[in-house]
Amino acid sequence: MENLARIKNKTLTDKIIPAKEAAGLIQNGMVVAASGFTKSGDSKAVLLAFGERAQIDHSQITLITGASLGQDTDAKLAAANAISLRLPFQADATMRRHINSAQLLYIDENLGETAMHLKTGVFPAIDIAIIEAVCIHEDGSIVPTTSVGNSAVFVALAKKVIIEINTAVPEEIEGIHDIFLSGSYPEKAIIPITSVGQRIGTGSIPCDPEKIAGIVFTHKKDSPADIQPADNTTSKIAGYILDFLKNEVAAGRLTQSLLPIQAGIGKVANAVLQGFANSDFEHLTMYSEVLQDSAFDLFDAGKLDFASGSSITVSEACYQRVFDNLERYKDKILLRPQDITNSAEVISRLGTIAINTALECDIYGNINSSHIAGTHIMNGIGGSADFAQNSYISIFVTESTCKGGTISRIVPMVSHVDHSEHDVDIVVTEQGLADLRGLAPRQKAEAIIKNCVHPDYREMLAGYYAEACERGGQTPHVLEKAFDWYKNLRTTGTMQRQPVLTEIPGTN
Amino acid sequence: MENLARIKNKTLTDKIIPAKEAAGLIQNGMVVAASGFTKSGDSKAVLLAFGERAQIDHSQITLITGASLGQDTDAKLAAANAISLRLPFQADATMRRHINSAQLLYIDENLGETAMHLKTGVFPAIDIAIIEAVCIHEDGSIVPTTSVGNSAVFVALAKKVIIEINTAVPEEIEGIHDIFLSGSYPEKAIIPITSVGQRIGTGSIPCDPEKIAGIVFTHKKDSPADIQPADNTTSKIAGYILDFLKNEVAAGRLTQSLLPIQAGIGKVANAVLQGFANSDFEHLTMYSEVLQDSAFDLFDAGKLDFASGSSITVSEACYQRVFDNLERYKDKILLRPQDITNSAEVISRLGTIAINTALECDIYGNINSSHIAGTHIMNGIGGSADFAQNSYISIFVTESTCKGGTISRIVPMVSHVDHSEHDVDIVVTEQGLADLRGLAPRQKAEAIIKNCVHPDYREMLAGYYAEACERGGQTPHVLEKAFDWYKNLRTTGTMQRQPVLTEIPGTN
Repeated sequence: MENLARIKNKTLTDKIIPAKEAAGLIQNGMVVAASGFTKSGDSKAVLLAFGERAQIDHSQITLITGASLGQDTDAKLAAANAISLRLPFQADATMRRHINSAQLLYIDENLGETAMHLKTGVFPAIDIAIIEAVCIHEDGSIVPTTSVGNSAVFVALAKKVIIEINTAVPEEIEGIHDIFLSGSYPEKAIIPITSVGQRIGTGSIPCDPEKIAGIVFTHKKDSPADIQPADNTTSKIAGYILDFLKNEVAAGRLTQSLLPIQAGIGKVANAVLQGFANSDFEHLTMYSEVLQDSAFDLFDAGKLDFASGSSITVSEACYQRVFDNLERYKDKILLRPQDITNSAEVISRLGTIAINTALECDIYGNINSSHIAGTHIMNGIGGSADFAQNSYISIFVTESTCKGGTISRIVPMVSHVDHSEHDVDIVVTEQGLADLRGLAPRQKAEAIIKNCVHPDYREMLAGYYAEACERGGQTPHVLEKAFDWYKNLRTTGTMQRQPVLTEIPGTN
Repeated sequence: MENLARIKNKTLTDKIIPAKEAAGLIQNGMVVAASGFTKSGDSKAVLLAFGERAQIDHSQITLITGASLGQDTDAKLAAANAISLRLPFQADATMRRHINSAQLLYIDENLGETAMHLKTGVFPAIDIAIIEAVCIHEDGSIVPTTSVGNSAVFVALAKKVIIEINTAVPEEIEGIHDIFLSGSYPEKAIIPITSVGQRIGTGSIPCDPEKIAGIVFTHKKDSPADIQPADNTTSKIAGYILDFLKNEVAAGRLTQSLLPIQAGIGKVANAVLQGFANSDFEHLTMYSEVLQDSAFDLFDAGKLDFASGSSITVSEACYQRVFDNLERYKDKILLRPQDITNSAEVISRLGTIAINTALECDIYGNINSSHIAGTHIMNGIGGSADFAQNSYISIFVTESTCKGGTISRIVPMVSHVDHSEHDVDIVVTEQGLADLRGLAPRQKAEAIIKNCVHPDYREMLAGYYAEACERGGQTPHVLEKAFDWYKNLRTTGTMQRQPVLTEIPGTN
């Protein structure tokens, strides 16, 4: 009964079916688009039911989502060999292995661009959309749960829609969503956001009731975010960023409330946001993709005025706190489609301060966010380029080394470029911060070698740079030695023994 | 007398001074911002007079412009060692040598971003702006000549302004400029352009008359553009692009009038635009940086309805034709500030089709636009990233080889990344076109090897890719061999002899 009350259009109640039956609508070769953004608001029944079936009948689909899924769905689908093509993002270890061994194709793309690529027909047409919802309105429109992601465009474009009504999410969440469809070329609309808290759309996703092919009930929380506590390294990085921002305020380039903050997922970003709680900054705002525990901590500390994102992805404890105190947060949050949260237009207009994590960084400030040793994908580019390219200040953070110091994350030349030096303003490691703004490439190299590299690698890196400078150029390199550190790692298990160095005369 | 009529505010006439005296206002160490975009609308007297003085007194300045300058100004200033820092773009052979030998610092940056970097204080404050104009209004506002570039923000921020009134440009040009200042964070405004021909600003650049420190008269045409005629190679590339666009129309993804076209400078872009004249496309529009001869040819062919850009950069013959027939073109052209022509916001809203030139491209579609062999800069990134990142379709063109076939422009891994695979949709050489949209990296590699590489290098490239695939990964590479082709070139004078190949078992 309580369940039925979530379907306001009573003609739709005869579409209630079990998950297994809904999964039966998914046929081999179909393109399936499913809600879900960083483990939040994802399909919790139908995709998994399809995965079980695929183990038997070997069906394969193209799976498009907002971003990563929870519930181990990507792992189970990959293990069942049920995916032929996956996009635009995943963050699962099993699926990663299948991608890197070419058992499934993966299009890792800028999270703000998938909606446009779907609308313009770059990707094949969507057969079925699966959308998690708290309720369905009289007009068929769907109120999403803890994420919006690409759900609005999925519903608009799909031939059929399956709705998973999740009764574990209280109906009171209705009101935090802001659904805006920007239209298609040549009639793409202005996205009129001029402040973080501005509502521009509707509270639910428009859906033709005729399209609804099945309604499934679930009662299951989102998979919790893994929140790693701040440690010595992340606290140092956070400290450098906070000091940098204080200096920007002192120099008159920012006010005490800064500009809207975007923070990627990860323990460093989390540590930075936690640092704001004990800072002098006030009336902060966020224009980000994911609202994590730290956002709610900042609300409670009275530091954060408003947060716009595409999902709420929090720990189990924070999940409970948010839903037990929705009235406290509800008027301070908007969840929007990811082509709005990540739109170049809005990010460049608001002047976002973007904080994202690098896998590695080179002496000129080029960033690798996605590929281990240039070849094996970790997760994907996600929204990092959407923000790095268009923000007022683009900050990348990374520890200076990893794997017990055998790998330097600051290298002569990154093995894969996700963000060119033009889109990177600040690089921070636990060693220090390099402010690359207004510098020419050789000046950037000097700043990064001086401030960011681990002492164990500083001499090696300075040696490489010195040899490169002897060759000349705007961006000096010794191409045939640029990747020697990876060769060392491959053959000796560490980047540290660098035989090239002994051959360099007259450096350091 | 005719000259004086161009100064509508008569109190300003006592500021008329010779160029040499105006150059005297430029002191050693100053930051000078000068009009000029792709050789158009540049300072034709004061900068050159400063360069002559600098030969004697060894003064050095930071020089900021819109883009490249004409009149050999960059060459003369570099030769006089009169520049310590140059930004955001240059295209001169002498200056290039000085940059690559680190005799002067060069910040090569996205042309749409300089205005924001200046407003936010990333670059040092502008001491003097030098702006070419056709006239000065009663209120002090300045009507530019054949380019707008960064002139509006230069005037807004400079402590003093020197105006060069160029009487070689007819006053009738007034009306083609659309000056819009988008404001500063946190009050940056919506840029309300929703169609190419929409005027959103004023016809002149606001200027406080008190700031005007000198007015210099000149009478000199812009340096003409070098228009290289279409040849067999460029015609083939143009043909592939036109066929691709026809297919997009046939597939219903574009209409017969396409979407606004952006074309970089160069003979390939020129050949493509010429190809439109004899095509079935109609009511075309351009939202570009530079309006070249081909734009005016398309107007005359009745194919082009409107062109928005930041400069008119044409051959000597076309220059004459434009000014002799201004009434024919005037209501079909708008020249805007480069942070408007190149704004992510407007480009992504209009859905531009961008056609830019690559120096080299790798098997995954990463593009190098700026650095020869990864180290020595050619010109710079220019506006290519502004358009590639935000366009509906981002096309890169290049010949498959150069230097008599000793260099392949399609390589295993580009030696410098200006545009990552995420911002590259189509790659075209005279060998063919690779449509990379909706493809995973391995599929991109297959498409590029099949369609774009020169036959002399196809087997080598396929061999590299096959060996890379044996290593696995989402983006297979053999890092220690990725730059072997450059090593060959360096040691043997050609990329063609690739000793690695003979070691690969079982490929091709």
